[in-house]
Amino acid sequence: MNTGEFDLIQQIRRHIVARDDVVLGIGDDAALLQLPANRQLVVAMDTLNIGVHFPRNTTAADIGWKALAVNLSDLAAMGAEPAWCTLSLSLPEADGDWLDGFLHGFTALARQHQIALVGGDTTRGPLSVCVTVHGLVASGEALRRDGARLGDDIWVSGSLGDAAAALALMLDEDGHLQDGDEALRQRLNRPTPRVPLGRALRGVAHAAIDVSDGLLADLQHICTASDVGARVQLAALPASDALLRAVDPERRQQLQATGGDDYELLFSAPVSARQAIEGIALATLTPLQRIGGIVNGERVVALAADGHEWQPSEPGYQHFSCR
Amino acid sequence: MNTGEFDLIQQIRRHIVARDDVVLGIGDDAALLQLPANRQLVVAMDTLNIGVHFPRNTTAADIGWKALAVNLSDLAAMGAEPAWCTLSLSLPEADGDWLDGFLHGFTALARQHQIALVGGDTTRGPLSVCVTVHGLVASGEALRRDGARLGDDIWVSGSLGDAAAALALMLDEDGHLQDGDEALRQRLNRPTPRVPLGRALRGVAHAAIDVSDGLLADLQHICTASDVGARVQLAALPASDALLRAVDPERRQQLQATGGDDYELLFSAPVSARQAIEGIALATLTPLQRIGGIVNGERVVALAADGHEWQPSEPGYQHFSCR
Repeated sequence: MNTGEFDLIQQIRRHIVARDDVVLGIGDDAALLQLPANRQLVVAMDTLNIGVHFPRNTTAADIGWKALAVNLSDLAAMGAEPAWCTLSLSLPEADGDWLDGFLHGFTALARQHQIALVGGDTTRGPLSVCVTVHGLVASGEALRRDGARLGDDIWVSGSLGDAAAALALMLDEDGHLQDGDEALRQRLNRPTPRVPLGRALRGVAHAAIDVSDGLLADLQHICTASDVGARVQLAALPASDALLRAVDPERRQQLQATGGDDYELLFSAPVSARQAIEGIALATLTPLQRIGGIVNGERVVALAADGHEWQPSEPGYQHFSCR
Repeated sequence: MNTGEFDLIQQIRRHIVARDDVVLGIGDDAALLQLPANRQLVVAMDTLNIGVHFPRNTTAADIGWKALAVNLSDLAAMGAEPAWCTLSLSLPEADGDWLDGFLHGFTALARQHQIALVGGDTTRGPLSVCVTVHGLVASGEALRRDGARLGDDIWVSGSLGDAAAALALMLDEDGHLQDGDEALRQRLNRPTPRVPLGRALRGVAHAAIDVSDGLLADLQHICTASDVGARVQLAALPASDALLRAVDPERRQQLQATGGDDYELLFSAPVSARQAIEGIALATLTPLQRIGGIVNGERVVALAADGHEWQPSEPGYQHFSCR
């Protein structure tokens, strides 16, 4: 720790959510955390790099929000309750204003989910944000990818394709979105981790994943882990009003089926759970849409409105830099 | 996850230490871990960036070892038992040979400490390695920085200044160490986290920290946290044979007192524990040296052989890029 790092850590300390189970937070060699009985620990870690996971003109506050959001989304997909996180921040220089903005975005989301920042480090280097999140779940109740069963319905939350549309429109237009596309940009920069939904789906859903690589790619992960196939009705994929306005139907379908970074929950559940799931949608204020079913096989088949199999013109979302 | 990432993850999976308490490792949205009863969780996270924390010509295997070692050292300083880790690896390109070397170094150390890699991600970006480690310690038994008491002895393990000497010699000589300095380079690139020592010091030491910023700077962290002062005899600081050979006495003293990256344990313990500590040194095969004592005040005072206060010509270790 050099002087610059020390100042940054003082700045970070002022933004921390307090929790009773943090015995020792930032300031020792490691954090010390009190574990509840009969819980399993759920751990996820995701890094965002400048120019790869977000465009260079993304605001510090949006980066702070998104770095935590993509990690909370992994906890959501496991049905876990957020507890603690650590943050490793690489910055080209010690920039207090940038850090203030970053922490503003990070903390706004941390407070919503009562997750405490308990450690990490600040280093000098190209802008990169690495977050590890820790959640808790009752033993044996975590949602997993490998539990999908034949005959299950396939559901997805919210709407699909918005984040990828925002990115595509920004790249189309020299990095400038039109004013009317602000809703799309919010979906790219300020994704909503579906934590309450994930928790409500414990004991209801058979398998779950968050949509980060794109709907079809992520559904394939469930199918591979569960040793099943899936059929999806493209016409059933939910679209936001902003997306309907922004792009033509053909491009919209592509974005909904393969665009990443939506951080919606994709899950399978038995037909007998339909009523319970409608209730969960109401209770968690989260739109849920039934989009297909689990079948024999190993592939994900997307069906167009005419009943024919639809093939995406690109196989999966490749994040910012690869497009 | 794109195709490149997927291939890298398959490669990483082949190198994992198995543990019974890993319910779900790499391959879902998050890892799922079984927690033992009556234990607290100890979490540390440290990042190494190319050109900042290691020179550009460092081998992949050395980077892999060191990225885990600096984190295990934090667990050692808490007296914790290593359990699980996550790894976020940013690489400029998917390079299987580099990754093989990296995993060779990383896994060699992971096996020694039976720590399981349970998750993380691979991203594209400038070379950067972020590791989060999880350890376990009996409730209330963790070593902390804030427990030093008046009259405590101050102890340090192993020897000091080797890593900083290696770095200084490399920079002096256009990045090339002499053959005879290999022992120093090993100390820089393959530090030994003092995990068995840290565990043995539970219930014996009053305060502990690992030496990453430099002896005097890290002792100051203990003093600040414990609200005490310290006096250190410079002549008592342990030096390796390699260091004695490599540099003159004045430079050696500077390196021992302020050089970082040694990852030795620095701790305070009551005078009544001297015999127990000698026993721990033998049992853990770790040289331990008594170098001073905890006194009233708030400062760390380093005393030269003539009894006068010694002032370093530079205040603390600034890692690679800042030197």
